[in-house]
Amino acid sequence: MRCKPVNLILVGYGNVGRAFFRLQLEKRLLARRRYGLDIGVFAVVEVDGVVASKKFLDETSLPPGPASDLERSPLWKKNLPLDALFRAKEPGVLIECTPTNLRTGEPALTHIRTALDSGWHVATANKGPLVVDFAGLRQKAKENRVALKFGGAAAAALPTLDVGLYSLAGAEVKSIEGILNGTANHILTRMGEGMSYQEALRDAQSKGIAEHDPSLDVEGWDTAAKLLLIANAVMGSSFTLQEMKVKGIAGLTPRIVQKSAGEGKALKLLGQASREEARFKAQVSPVALDRDHPLFGVSGTNKGITFFTDTMGPVTVTGGKSDPRGAAAALFKDIINIFRPA
Amino acid sequence: MRCKPVNLILVGYGNVGRAFFRLQLEKRLLARRRYGLDIGVFAVVEVDGVVASKKFLDETSLPPGPASDLERSPLWKKNLPLDALFRAKEPGVLIECTPTNLRTGEPALTHIRTALDSGWHVATANKGPLVVDFAGLRQKAKENRVALKFGGAAAAALPTLDVGLYSLAGAEVKSIEGILNGTANHILTRMGEGMSYQEALRDAQSKGIAEHDPSLDVEGWDTAAKLLLIANAVMGSSFTLQEMKVKGIAGLTPRIVQKSAGEGKALKLLGQASREEARFKAQVSPVALDRDHPLFGVSGTNKGITFFTDTMGPVTVTGGKSDPRGAAAALFKDIINIFRPA
Repeated sequence: MRCKPVNLILVGYGNVGRAFFRLQLEKRLLARRRYGLDIGVFAVVEVDGVVASKKFLDETSLPPGPASDLERSPLWKKNLPLDALFRAKEPGVLIECTPTNLRTGEPALTHIRTALDSGWHVATANKGPLVVDFAGLRQKAKENRVALKFGGAAAAALPTLDVGLYSLAGAEVKSIEGILNGTANHILTRMGEGMSYQEALRDAQSKGIAEHDPSLDVEGWDTAAKLLLIANAVMGSSFTLQEMKVKGIAGLTPRIVQKSAGEGKALKLLGQASREEARFKAQVSPVALDRDHPLFGVSGTNKGITFFTDTMGPVTVTGGKSDPRGAAAALFKDIINIFRPA
Repeated sequence: MRCKPVNLILVGYGNVGRAFFRLQLEKRLLARRRYGLDIGVFAVVEVDGVVASKKFLDETSLPPGPASDLERSPLWKKNLPLDALFRAKEPGVLIECTPTNLRTGEPALTHIRTALDSGWHVATANKGPLVVDFAGLRQKAKENRVALKFGGAAAAALPTLDVGLYSLAGAEVKSIEGILNGTANHILTRMGEGMSYQEALRDAQSKGIAEHDPSLDVEGWDTAAKLLLIANAVMGSSFTLQEMKVKGIAGLTPRIVQKSAGEGKALKLLGQASREEARFKAQVSPVALDRDHPLFGVSGTNKGITFFTDTMGPVTVTGGKSDPRGAAAALFKDIINIFRPA
């Protein structure tokens, strides 16, 4: 079978970027066989330079270490502008994996705008640029007739957007409820078992689940950012972070968590978006879920989302790896879905 | 906006067919606005005749009653062959809603083969033809470069196939576990509350959940048929019903169900398909699920499925209406996804 070549530029070589580079090498043969796509990375972009080649990069093209080792590669070029890469190849997909900034969206925002204007599709694991300029980026993608995919940004391998946009096509999503942050959910689960907030947080940090600065996770802003992307994409809302009421779990006592459990409920950090006529509402807060709520059993680092629809009833998705490999797999999925036939 | 016309032929005007006809009328404006598709039915086909028009049929085109009333329509034509309809219009989608026959697949099998050979796409709510000739129909669709969609047959509004094929693109599905029959699950849930099998069955029948002849549901064959479709589509297996080990719930006593509950487990009628190297295995049987199994909480008439993957971990979908309107919504979704841009 003659395969369609799909050129990738990978921007950002942190944990997710490295996991993505490895995963697309592992999956190259599968993509050729199952989807007829010859997918490969020809450039890896970091802050001060680029590893680039005319052919797809392979295991031997990159030093085994982190981003700071890239400059040891014989293919390293200092300060090569992204524009030059966009012109170097038949347009494919920009894979955006730089660190998230929920305030400015940069540097990803500029990368994505330039890619779309250059006729390149985009798949991003970084939610910053979409939180900052959701409508603008979608409009730009539409004008340039290219795809802007962000499944990897919305909840890694949990397929929130695919289900909302594809599986529920033709239905009206009246409301969305989601447990979208694995760190906060892990902490609440541990508190339900009797730990204090501080103990549960330290437990999560010692296991690599929570970051050294866990504020985005425990104060609810990571949940809010994901909810914003999903609601805006699926419900057609135009939320900004500023408009959302966000309350995290930092002030909670084990007593409150255990009180819910004693009543047969489960306390969860829940993102909720809903529509009444043309009015949209969105908030993030701890909510005690009844036993028959479809997200009741989502515990530990697991995540889940329920779409309440007019014609299909409630549809819930749970699970999906939250680690860098899960995010990488979501990016790879988005690439396949840009190019596969219907 | 200029919309793309999508011509539909609806075959079978039973509960699902009627629900589909109503739903596509309700959703016509939404399909135009949101997807740029002008979707409409121009022919409704029943055993001994057809209601057909040059334009899309509307509320006033069909008598309000069941299939037997269709012949009262002024647009009724007796014994019009399906071929004539395929030639009458720009090819669109055949919507197959005739009664299911898991042994012969007919009459749907002939309808679908003819449609595919005439260059028409197919969306079916009837699993019979796919259970009987999965590989042959897929091959025929491929040769004719048309889509063969069967989301409505695999589990109505529960998006099993979309998730398996679209959301998990690029991942290897190593195994599938599913609670795929709402009637059996309802009966088991009631037995867990203390009813005998016979009491629970009568309860389901009195609520319209179980049919007068519930054998396909309680003996596991409905679950097996759905599992066959999903596994063959998503895992690339080629199961036939004959190869599957199928055990239903008819012989179970409340004691067995309650024993599971006493051990903190939940007894479910589970379809399981897995792959070890190139060997596939599939079976249907009552299984006691641990509390941390993602399908543990799926009770009553609810359904759910878990895909265990290499790169994305386990991904679970639950919920989705099981009634004729849910199946109709799944058919409508499949139509949109045939024609929408990526």
